[in-house]
Amino acid sequence: MGSGRLHALIDGVFAIALTLLVLDLPKPLFSTHLVHVLLHEWPSYVAYLVSFVTIGILWIEHHGMMSAVRGIDRRFLERTPAFLLFISIIPWPTALAANYAKGGFSEARAVAVLYAGTMLMMGLTFAWGWRYLEKHPTLVTESARPAFPAGARRALLGGLVYLVAIAVAFLSPIASFAIDAGVAVYFAISRSEVPGLVVQSAGAGGA
Amino acid sequence: MGSGRLHALIDGVFAIALTLLVLDLPKPLFSTHLVHVLLHEWPSYVAYLVSFVTIGILWIEHHGMMSAVRGIDRRFLERTPAFLLFISIIPWPTALAANYAKGGFSEARAVAVLYAGTMLMMGLTFAWGWRYLEKHPTLVTESARPAFPAGARRALLGGLVYLVAIAVAFLSPIASFAIDAGVAVYFAISRSEVPGLVVQSAGAGGA
Amino acid sequence: MGSGRLHALIDGVFAIALTLLVLDLPKPLFSTHLVHVLLHEWPSYVAYLVSFVTIGILWIEHHGMMSAVRGIDRRFLERTPAFLLFISIIPWPTALAANYAKGGFSEARAVAVLYAGTMLMMGLTFAWGWRYLEKHPTLVTESARPAFPAGARRALLGGLVYLVAIAVAFLSPIASFAIDAGVAVYFAISRSEVPGLVVQSAGAGGA
Amino acid sequence: MGSGRLHALIDGVFAIALTLLVLDLPKPLFSTHLVHVLLHEWPSYVAYLVSFVTIGILWIEHHGMMSAVRGIDRRFLERTPAFLLFISIIPWPTALAANYAKGGFSEARAVAVLYAGTMLMMGLTFAWGWRYLEKHPTLVTESARPAFPAGARRALLGGLVYLVAIAVAFLSPIASFAIDAGVAVYFAISRSEVPGLVVQSAGAGGA
Repeated sequence: MGSGRLHALIDGVFAIALTLLVLDLPKPLFSTHLVHVLLHEWPSYVAYLVSFVTIGILWIEHHGMMSAVRGIDRRFLERTPAFLLFISIIPWPTALAANYAKGGFSEARAVAVLYAGTMLMMGLTFAWGWRYLEKHPTLVTESARPAFPAGARRALLGGLVYLVAIAVAFLSPIASFAIDAGVAVYFAISRSEVPGLVVQSAGAGGA
Repeated sequence: MGSGRLHALIDGVFAIALTLLVLDLPKPLFSTHLVHVLLHEWPSYVAYLVSFVTIGILWIEHHGMMSAVRGIDRRFLERTPAFLLFISIIPWPTALAANYAKGGFSEARAVAVLYAGTMLMMGLTFAWGWRYLEKHPTLVTESARPAFPAGARRALLGGLVYLVAIAVAFLSPIASFAIDAGVAVYFAISRSEVPGLVVQSAGAGGA
Repeated sequence: MGSGRLHALIDGVFAIALTLLVLDLPKPLFSTHLVHVLLHEWPSYVAYLVSFVTIGILWIEHHGMMSAVRGIDRRFLERTPAFLLFISIIPWPTALAANYAKGGFSEARAVAVLYAGTMLMMGLTFAWGWRYLEKHPTLVTESARPAFPAGARRALLGGLVYLVAIAVAFLSPIASFAIDAGVAVYFAISRSEVPGLVVQSAGAGGA
Repeated sequence: MGSGRLHALIDGVFAIALTLLVLDLPKPLFSTHLVHVLLHEWPSYVAYLVSFVTIGILWIEHHGMMSAVRGIDRRFLERTPAFLLFISIIPWPTALAANYAKGGFSEARAVAVLYAGTMLMMGLTFAWGWRYLEKHPTLVTESARPAFPAGARRALLGGLVYLVAIAVAFLSPIASFAIDAGVAVYFAISRSEVPGLVVQSAGAGGA
């Protein structure tokens, strides 16, 4: 149950963060040029898509990690809210990015730094969880243990790329956002190394 | 667990999308003609109802599909966020439809296309999941395998009807919305072909 | 799994409906008489509390019903979104009641009717589920079957009280709201008849 | 199942309360001094962080308590919505605190009292659940019973500290908020006494 409830909290936060993004899509009231107004808001859709894909990928990666966990202790439990903090906060920089990505340079730069900074922290807290499991192999199934150093490295590198995005934001905010989008695309295409993803469905066991 | 957590994410997004629809129901402040104002907003209630029923039906259909799944792999896992993207975005075209269905022709047409387009993409990504399971029968319980070609076809056809709704929107936006509502009603009445829905409840097993 | 996923959707909608109520509590910006303004908004807190308790009680009652279910079929599955529709919509009449309960008579009457009408529909769709299980005893554990007629009657009567609240609203909206509050209090105090609530926790089984 | 569904509702409310906090982070539109405006809103971030950590800690503590529960009865079930009421309401005083913590003395005092009062009620309803389990040891696993008096005391003391925060608010609202933050930090650092947190993961059992 312990890990079951942890999954429930994690999946709840992921599901809500994914779904709350919709609240910031443009809903102009009483516009007489609706198509024009909606098309003009294209950064909103790009920001929505990048954030959605990033959260979705993170969920898949996190799912891969947790499917190899067979026990949890309190220290591991404490790392989870830290990670969830940065997952749940994503709609905020996303909304700001949608509003300001096309704005003045100093505003666009600020939101690019804020966006990549949020993703950096999310990646670091994710890597922090991987690292803890790598150091405490008794919490992990035996078959998955050899894969944990690679998994922790992948999570850490995925997070550190956002340091580049932060640096680039000072030259070109658009280029910084392009890096954020590129990370999402890269992780969507590449495959994680953790085994155990073809699992027996608990649900269909009786059929 | 693998599929259990997948269910948790899916059900979470469905539950939140269903519930977030309520945020766009009209809440006029300090009106002195409240009944008149609320009645005037009838497109909001129709849009709410059609979207709610559509999401509810999709959940039942998806539940039927997943109850036959006994294992998941990473590729199947990746199809899920694509499907959830279009489930979670539904409150957005719903709110626009509520605002503009009665408005000028070009605005009503735009939101009719947007609404049916969202539903089209939702149907296509749903059919994409069915198709994957049909091509990878080892992920499906043996008793359910014969039903998968019909299930995939049904999901695909259900999605493609929205192409008609998009085309009709250029002639009559209201007729387009009527098609969207008709799809929801049709799927609510007809029965899916996938077996396995009378399952032993895990919860009451001990009683 | 079938019933497990149904529980997940139901519990998700309950949890979100409970939590979305908070969005309509008064958050005046830049007030210089905050205490006065907050106290003036007392109908918001009463409406919040009544809706929260009503949803909470419904969850407990629904939990009692479902804990006796050992299998589900598609027709039962279809009754669920109908019930969830009225659970998830509760934040809407709650917000209107908070705004208009103290307003002019015709506005207060309208929101009292809307509020009690929502609760009536919620009660009727809940009773509809009970009734279906009563008529299909194979879906229910043997030990719980004798209790189902009483459970269905209780749910139906609980719903029908709101008919009284609707009628009373035409004389006195405040008295109508008082009946809504009274139903919540009554159900909180009285005990349901369905056995099976002391169950073995799945989670602690290993301890 | 009984306790499984209870967990689902609880975890859902926790996950949503954690995630709804993001809706009140500042999203200034069309600002030409975005960085300045965002920095000026620092109380929003502090309030966000304190509320997030408090809810996260409460989830961990509650998880510890529930992991020792092996059965639930209706009276225990009824204590849960009372606790969840105060968890789900937290975004409201958080938003007010973010807005008014830097404002005039009487406003800052009001929100400091409201914030600490919410936390007090949350702590008391949490302790109420502990106490019930302490008095009904058959609901608790044998190995965990000796730890329940200490757990109930810890929860009660954790709640009563907010009485101090309420009193201090009349002298210095900022000092009152500092106490709220201190409680979160203290509970994050200290360890709860309830055993059973290193549990076998149900999910990874098949690997």
